[in-house]
Amino acid sequence: MRTMGMQVGQMLARIREQRPLIHHITNLVVMNDTANITLMVGASPVMAHAAEEAAEMASMAGALVLNPGTLTREWVESMMIAGRQANNFKVPIVLDPVGAGATSFRMRSNQQMLDGLSLQVVRGNAGEIGSLSGLGGTVKGVDSVEAASEPDVVARHMARERSTVVAITGQRDVISDGTRTLGVDNGHPWLTHLTGTGCMATAMIAAFAAVERDYLVAAAGALATYGLAAELAAERTSGPASFKVALFDHLYHLTPEQVAGGVRIVEMG
Amino acid sequence: MRTMGMQVGQMLARIREQRPLIHHITNLVVMNDTANITLMVGASPVMAHAAEEAAEMASMAGALVLNPGTLTREWVESMMIAGRQANNFKVPIVLDPVGAGATSFRMRSNQQMLDGLSLQVVRGNAGEIGSLSGLGGTVKGVDSVEAASEPDVVARHMARERSTVVAITGQRDVISDGTRTLGVDNGHPWLTHLTGTGCMATAMIAAFAAVERDYLVAAAGALATYGLAAELAAERTSGPASFKVALFDHLYHLTPEQVAGGVRIVEMG
Amino acid sequence: MRTMGMQVGQMLARIREQRPLIHHITNLVVMNDTANITLMVGASPVMAHAAEEAAEMASMAGALVLNPGTLTREWVESMMIAGRQANNFKVPIVLDPVGAGATSFRMRSNQQMLDGLSLQVVRGNAGEIGSLSGLGGTVKGVDSVEAASEPDVVARHMARERSTVVAITGQRDVISDGTRTLGVDNGHPWLTHLTGTGCMATAMIAAFAAVERDYLVAAAGALATYGLAAELAAERTSGPASFKVALFDHLYHLTPEQVAGGVRIVEMG
Repeated sequence: MRTMGMQVGQMLARIREQRPLIHHITNLVVMNDTANITLMVGASPVMAHAAEEAAEMASMAGALVLNPGTLTREWVESMMIAGRQANNFKVPIVLDPVGAGATSFRMRSNQQMLDGLSLQVVRGNAGEIGSLSGLGGTVKGVDSVEAASEPDVVARHMARERSTVVAITGQRDVISDGTRTLGVDNGHPWLTHLTGTGCMATAMIAAFAAVERDYLVAAAGALATYGLAAELAAERTSGPASFKVALFDHLYHLTPEQVAGGVRIVEMG
Repeated sequence: MRTMGMQVGQMLARIREQRPLIHHITNLVVMNDTANITLMVGASPVMAHAAEEAAEMASMAGALVLNPGTLTREWVESMMIAGRQANNFKVPIVLDPVGAGATSFRMRSNQQMLDGLSLQVVRGNAGEIGSLSGLGGTVKGVDSVEAASEPDVVARHMARERSTVVAITGQRDVISDGTRTLGVDNGHPWLTHLTGTGCMATAMIAAFAAVERDYLVAAAGALATYGLAAELAAERTSGPASFKVALFDHLYHLTPEQVAGGVRIVEMG
Repeated sequence: MRTMGMQVGQMLARIREQRPLIHHITNLVVMNDTANITLMVGASPVMAHAAEEAAEMASMAGALVLNPGTLTREWVESMMIAGRQANNFKVPIVLDPVGAGATSFRMRSNQQMLDGLSLQVVRGNAGEIGSLSGLGGTVKGVDSVEAASEPDVVARHMARERSTVVAITGQRDVISDGTRTLGVDNGHPWLTHLTGTGCMATAMIAAFAAVERDYLVAAAGALATYGLAAELAAERTSGPASFKVALFDHLYHLTPEQVAGGVRIVEMG
């Protein structure tokens, strides 16, 4: 996969050159972190959730993030407004179905977005994607407890059903467009001990999707780049919080060459 | 109090084993920090404030945090919905009456929760608890200016009146259930130079209350553990912000044995 | 400008002595950071956006921050309520027109505040102030792309038109009251690679405006102090995120004497 490493490095270079605008309608817990991760990778974040401006902002964006982690009816309505406009303007949408399966309101709201919008990537943990796919999964709050099937089976199944790229993040991230399936082995266990690290992975995918229309490769490249920054960050830090500070710093300094040589992406079928 | 140290260490061990779900309906300023402190102590946080899911989420939780620091009418209504369901399911509730006394809206909203719910712990600073107790206290914004009486008198009085454990945090934290009163001497002055450190103390209490039904001991143990992590964090940091990063890291690494040996809890009557 | 350095140092000393209450109605992305920067400089932050308490809180404040970075109709209404009360009580208001020009809703909402309130300071980037001033500017999301004219011309023009102090932050910050114009050369490029650094600059201005009624000098002093802390923070950090942690720490430790010697403010006419 040397070739894919170079391809991912080139995507990072394009992000830094083009500085695409990433429009986030996201949850209240992670806004600061997802704005900063967007900046560190080289893109330009804006958070805008008012129904009055959601469509206008989405129409100007390079990609749109929909993350209903602290959803209300009004916020989901704004996500639908922004999403419909993104579809009109061919702006790629990345959905992060935080806690889907934990409550019926979350399940219903996420299904509304899956049914009513054309989504380019859906990223979640095994429980969330398992729940949404209908193949079964268990979610406790926003934590994945378990999935009923292997992640590659679930990702491929849902990708086909929903005509979208599906990314299930975990020890190995699994990404499928229904035909091709990739695995990403970059990452670090401390990512699971911090809030918002999944949401930051989603923001990374949006930045890559803004510069690469092969969304399978964009998603895998984003997760590998993020995981590589995490590996570097873990080298000299002493716990999850100092690791998070270092993760931002390392992503900021990461070069396309480092990415080309360091990402570990495998073909799974 | 060697025995209490061991008891607190055992509570920490139980949190890490059971990973209780802590449902937070909290303020917009501290959400990221309180989610992370919940993770660092070993529990699992979820933030969910929509009226549509507040009851369902609360019914699954090990404890519920109600923190109206950036309250609106709708958020307080969701807190009431979640709180009533928590009462139905015997899920302990910890109230953090941020800025109670600063405006009449804050006073009214906090009293609505005190009157309409059965609360297991109320944690605030001297001004907030003084105001709520009716014994008098002065609040400027969210800062305590002064209390009219000694904290142990105020805590004991309000605990009796309201049939709840009351914790007043300060240089010495004072915790009372109306009969027993404990003091906690762990902590560090830098905690007072950061936003959200009181809210994080409340989140700690919720994690302990999820695994220990003697809420007096749970609250004292949580505050002592938090204060111990703060002491360790202050040792090699150069200011409040690097101290906060280290506080998370140290809490993450803190062992039940360290807790057993390091907490300083005294009986005050 | 040795004299102005001493004057700024004395303002910092007054903030620490008086600990003015700064009432923020601000955006969801930066609340934690702007609360902490307010604490580090020595003032006391409170975030309160409910229509039910906005006026009461504003009437008690030393200064009011209005920052519609994640605006909705309801939040803007609360800003107007708080702002009118601030005007009644002669509490200085600092407006941060985040992303003005990016959408028509943002433009309209910011103009509503400019038209309906007496503002003491408006701080933004070149694109935002250019858009608002009517002289032209380009905004992409919340980033300034370009201004149509030189910042000192724009600042002076808008300051006269609107009878307020206008601060345009950039490589050199330019501050004008329509008659006098000052430049501030303190700062560091990493400030542009983090979210919320403009919003933190605004919070700094509010703290200084609470203790100094010459708002031109207050704004320049705040930006110079903030920039000086940034310079110190950059000395031994390895990227934007560790820089941000150090920025808080250095501001916390900064002495009036250091400020007197380190701020670089120039008269521009």
